[in-house]
Formats: sequence, C-alpha cells, structure tokens
Amino acid sequence: MTQATSEDPWSVTETDLREQMRSLRRNDADAAVVTVAAVDGSAYRRPGAKMLVPADGEAAGAVTAGCLEEPVVDLAQEILATGQPRIEVFDLLDSDDDSWGLGLGCNGVIDLFVEPLDASVDRPLAMLDNGDPATVLTVVDGSGDTPIGSRTVVGADGTREAVPDREPVPTTLLDAIGDTIDRVHGTGSTQTVDIGSATVLVDSLQPVSDLLLFGSQNDLPPLARLASDVGFRVTVHSPRGGVDESTFPHADTVTTGHPTTITDSVGTDQHTYAVVMSHNLVDDRLAVETLLTETEVPYVGLMGPRERFKELRESMAEDGVKLPKSALERLSTPVGLDLGGGEPLEIALSIVAEALAVSNGCEGGRLRDRDGPIHPRIPE
Amino acid sequence: MTQATSEDPWSVTETDLREQMRSLRRNDADAAVVTVAAVDGSAYRRPGAKMLVPADGEAAGAVTAGCLEEPVVDLAQEILATGQPRIEVFDLLDSDDDSWGLGLGCNGVIDLFVEPLDASVDRPLAMLDNGDPATVLTVVDGSGDTPIGSRTVVGADGTREAVPDREPVPTTLLDAIGDTIDRVHGTGSTQTVDIGSATVLVDSLQPVSDLLLFGSQNDLPPLARLASDVGFRVTVHSPRGGVDESTFPHADTVTTGHPTTITDSVGTDQHTYAVVMSHNLVDDRLAVETLLTETEVPYVGLMGPRERFKELRESMAEDGVKLPKSALERLSTPVGLDLGGGEPLEIALSIVAEALAVSNGCEGGRLRDRDGPIHPRIPE
Repeated sequence: MTQATSEDPWSVTETDLREQMRSLRRNDADAAVVTVAAVDGSAYRRPGAKMLVPADGEAAGAVTAGCLEEPVVDLAQEILATGQPRIEVFDLLDSDDDSWGLGLGCNGVIDLFVEPLDASVDRPLAMLDNGDPATVLTVVDGSGDTPIGSRTVVGADGTREAVPDREPVPTTLLDAIGDTIDRVHGTGSTQTVDIGSATVLVDSLQPVSDLLLFGSQNDLPPLARLASDVGFRVTVHSPRGGVDESTFPHADTVTTGHPTTITDSVGTDQHTYAVVMSHNLVDDRLAVETLLTETEVPYVGLMGPRERFKELRESMAEDGVKLPKSALERLSTPVGLDLGGGEPLEIALSIVAEALAVSNGCEGGRLRDRDGPIHPRIPE
Repeated sequence: MTQATSEDPWSVTETDLREQMRSLRRNDADAAVVTVAAVDGSAYRRPGAKMLVPADGEAAGAVTAGCLEEPVVDLAQEILATGQPRIEVFDLLDSDDDSWGLGLGCNGVIDLFVEPLDASVDRPLAMLDNGDPATVLTVVDGSGDTPIGSRTVVGADGTREAVPDREPVPTTLLDAIGDTIDRVHGTGSTQTVDIGSATVLVDSLQPVSDLLLFGSQNDLPPLARLASDVGFRVTVHSPRGGVDESTFPHADTVTTGHPTTITDSVGTDQHTYAVVMSHNLVDDRLAVETLLTETEVPYVGLMGPRERFKELRESMAEDGVKLPKSALERLSTPVGLDLGGGEPLEIALSIVAEALAVSNGCEGGRLRDRDGPIHPRIPE
C-alpha cells in the first residue's frame, strides 16, 4: 500500500501523507507542513495540496510540478527553527525575479502556508480516521491581533472545536466566514477568505475513499494494486475461504464470508465504492442485491457484459426481487470506462478510473471535449 | 518496467509476455504457448490472449479470470511432452461436467490452442520489434491433411512468409480465408475461420504502443510508472540535461535535447502517443508544433488548462505558425480523462487512461452509458 511512498515520496497520495503525519505525531517528531493556500494562473496542484517536511528525513508530497520543491524545503526548515508559521507568496510570473522556478519556466502565483506539525492536527486526523469529514480553519495571514496559525476545526455535525497547541480562531472571525465554511465543509475543496484583518484558510478534508472488491480470482490483485496506487483504501470481501492478505498484497483488509455479509465490509457507506467481480452469477447477484438494497454506497460496479446483467435481473425477478430506479442509478455495468483494452491491467485501469471519476462527481470522457475548468469549482 | 511481471505473473502485459518469449527463445528453453482461439458466452479474456508456460519456471499471462489456469498448465505440460499442438475446448456451461472451473462459477465456452514455443515465433516477434504489424495464421484444428500447427506469417506489406519449425499453411487455404486476413491484419484482433477441412486462427499482432513524455519534472515518474504498468513502452524526451534512466526508473529510453529534436524520440509515428508536459510555455510550444507538423503521431496531449493553450497559440500566431485542422484533431488539451482527481497519481491515471482509450479508438466515457458490446468488434 505504501509502494508509491517508498519509491517516489514526491508523488505520495493524500492517504499516505496522512499516515505519515500520524506516524510523525506518534513519535513526537519535528516536521513542517506546507499547504497550497491559493494559486493564480496555471498550477499543477490545487489549493489544499500538501507537502510534509520532517526535520529528519525526506520530504513527501507535492505543492507544484517540481518548480518550487527545493526552496520550499529550505523555507520549511526555517519555520521548523523559528516555530513561527507564515505564508509565503511565490510569484513565478515576475520575470525580473529569477529566483523561483523561472529557470524551469513555471508560471503562476502560488501562496504557500508553512507551519510546524503539532497537536493541532490530531483531532482532524482522528475525525477522518473515523470516516467523518473535517474542515480545518487556519488564520494564515493578517494585520490584526489574531496570531498567524490560530486554528479551529469543524466536525461532521458542524460543531466547532478548539485544538491543542493553537489559539482558536476568534468567534467574530468564524461568524464572518460562516457562509464559506458551510459551502466548503464536506466537499474536499480548499479556499482562502480574506476579511481584511485576517486571511483564513478553509481546508475541507474528506475521509479516504474505500474500494471494496467482491471476488476471489486472479483479476483482483492488479485492481487492488492500481487502486491503492491512486490512494483508495482497498478491502476485499471474498466469497471463498483460503484467501487472506497474502493473496491480495495490496488490499488493506481481506474478509471472507457469504455474499450477503458484504455489508460487514462496508466502512462508511458514503465513501465506499464497490466492484462486484466474483465471476459467479449467483454470488454476484447476492452481492449486488445486498449492496443496493441494504447500503447507500454510491457506486456498485458489476463486471461482465450487459447480457450477464440481464441474466442476473431475470434471476432476481424469479425470486420477486425488483431493484428500485434509485438503486439502478448506483449500479454501473458493464463496469469501467470505455478504454478498449482487454489485458488484466487495462481492465483494472478502466475500473479504477471509473471509481475515481464517480467519487469526484465526474463522468470520464475526454477533458478536451468538455467545457469549463478542469476541476469542478465550488461557487464563490 | 517489469514490475508487474515479477510481482504477479498472471497479470503480465502483452508487452512483457513478448519479452519473455524472446528471452526463452534466446536461451532455447522449452515452453508452451496457450492462445484463446474463441469464446462463447461471457469471458474475461478475448481471443488472442496468451499464456506462456515454461517447462521450468512459472507460467505467465492469463487466459481466463483464473477459472482454468491450473488445468491449462497441466495441458501445456502434456503438449510439451508430446510436442503435438492441439486445441482444447473447455465448456464451462455444461453443468454436468464439474471438472472445469464450475466450482468457481465461471461460465462460457472457451477454445484454447496449445503449442510448443519454437522458431516459428521468431519472425513475427522481429516484425513487431521493428514497429511493424504481423498477422500469424495457424491451423488449429481440422480433419484434412494439413498438420495442426501449420503456420504462415503475414508481414507489414501483406507478404506471406513461411516460418521455421512449421509446415506452411497451404495456398488454397490462404486463398479461402484471404478476406478475413485482409480485414484483420493491422487491427490487433483475433478470429478463427472454419472452412470445413481446417480451422485457422488469424491472430493480428500490433507493435507495442509508445508513450513519449516531453518534460523533466517530478510529475513524469508517476506517469511513466502507470504507463509502463499497463504495457506502454515509455520514452522520455527532456529539454534539460542532467536527467537519465535513473531519474525516470520506469522509462525505457531517456533522451535530452532541444524541443524540436523530439522527432528523434518518435519510433513509429502510428504507434506513438505523446504527452507534452515540460511546464515551460516556450518549450511546450516548440514540442507541440514539431509533433503536429513534422510527425503523424495520432495523439499529442498537452498538460495545462485551456487558457494556457490559448497563450501557446497566440505565441504561434505571432510567429505566423498556424496549425491545420487535421493537426488540431490530434491535439488533446487539457490532457486526460475527466476523473476529477488532483493528486500526481490521479493526474497520471487520467492521462494514461486517455492515451489508452485513443490507442484503442475509444472515447473514455462510462461503459454503462454506451450502447453495444464492451469491446469493438470487427465485422464478420
């Protein structure tokens, strides 16, 4: 699961980055966290992207395509020494200033907030671990009395919590940005709000997405590997005994049991994307039926051609089972995006790509054929 | 590049499988080749899918999702012992026969052709290595005088060649299936033709697809890794010195040079998919211009938002460069499929998925929203 990490720390997933933060916190190790607060112009990473710079050890994560990573590590070391969080603006458009990435030809203006990793992250990390969203509010700039780095965390039910090691964001400030908080919370987006005396980073964090694979055959491992590569937490629910974590080295959890017990393998419905691929019609039918009628998982991919799903529905109909329209909308069969490849890894890629698209509210298809910005924007 | 191979031989790519065949042939090692000749009903792999069973060593490749792999290895060992190629029909629909995969619930009828790996593959493998298509014609069944395993190879220009270790397919037979050969050659599809006295497998093989990456920054390695995972041969052309194979461990070839020398890094135009991602507007412009005007590569992905391409075109226009419509049709910007993820590996996945889709003539939307079969069929 941490293959990407060990091989190329720059391209570590958000999932792995959070694990590294937890590990550093457990060991009480010094580290700086760098967060993209805002970008202007074309930028590789969006606001909210993070880099983790341990005092001892290699930096992980990416805040640009590589234009700024070196100066940012220096800046992080400086913040580790002073303990004072601050925002730094890197203007890659200013051609008179050749110090920042211009040799590489990057452009855009990027605001990076750099802060020490401290106990203020423990609570939001615990919320995420629990399957709940967390929105972290941080004062990143300002001329007022509020210290830079002041932090308040918004939990699943909208409650605002103070956190250790930081001043809370003053209530007047929170009230002033209440609309933004409500709009951003639970979306996974990040915005900065400038209200004159202070600039607040509103950083909405979503729990990791689970990819739940139902099956036990040879086509699961390549899918588990690709899914884990792009940051899914992978659970395998196998209708056959005799399989475990060693059968699926890239799965985080492996359980075996009757298809109808697949509900036990669903963490948080809302963040679980399921793929039914046992190649056994009876087992597949039971798993699909259970997932669609007993859970609210937003995506149930079913492997196999259209004709096979017809057979499956006929078998349901014979038993008087009829799936409501709302259930069928969550079903995706034939599973995957239309990539045309027929090799095991190509099939796996097509499925992971669809699950990722659905998890982000996208439809696949080519970006060039689509209007509007690459990334969905939340309304200002 | 062979990560998938070593980790999970079952999900090896066609690219790697061919490399393994070449290696076994160089060492004059005994092995059997299993090819899916035909399928009826739902099947995980399509005709043409191959499995390689060395006399000593682990089998590689997949002919089903795992239902038949064990009996097939036994069969391959039998053919290695007798030296006699033959076709075997596995009827997974026949519920009275519990010997083939029924315990796993697989269904469908699958015809597998099993033969010894011999010098008859050297010529088609050399053609593919040279960037040319090859269509391998093999008599896989029949009651006539033609020995099972008789083989003739069709080269790039349609010439028919006999190959060592096998009888040629008789001219009368070749003439009888001439239409099928013409229709299949160069498509990468596989068909069997039954003309009464003999059944001929018409197996069209395409050279490996190249993914040519133009750039030098941190976002290249994750892209190279995913692309190599799914079977692309990866070439990096970097506009900066100081990079080599160690910078991009999953690239097969790394060259550095001026953007306009990118043509030197294009193997066969027709099978090269290019992604321009140097993050430098001037370099990107030159690379795009060169690829679109001096080569016929079918796909030039350009990283960055729509606005950046506008800038790039304005810069071209100032210099009197105007891209013809046919060139713009090959350009894909913003590059990638609409998956919505913003992390380095998610961006990489979106790009590899688009290149794969384009290489297969697909558009990358959701299969469930598309009519017709999952895989494009060539006309009968």
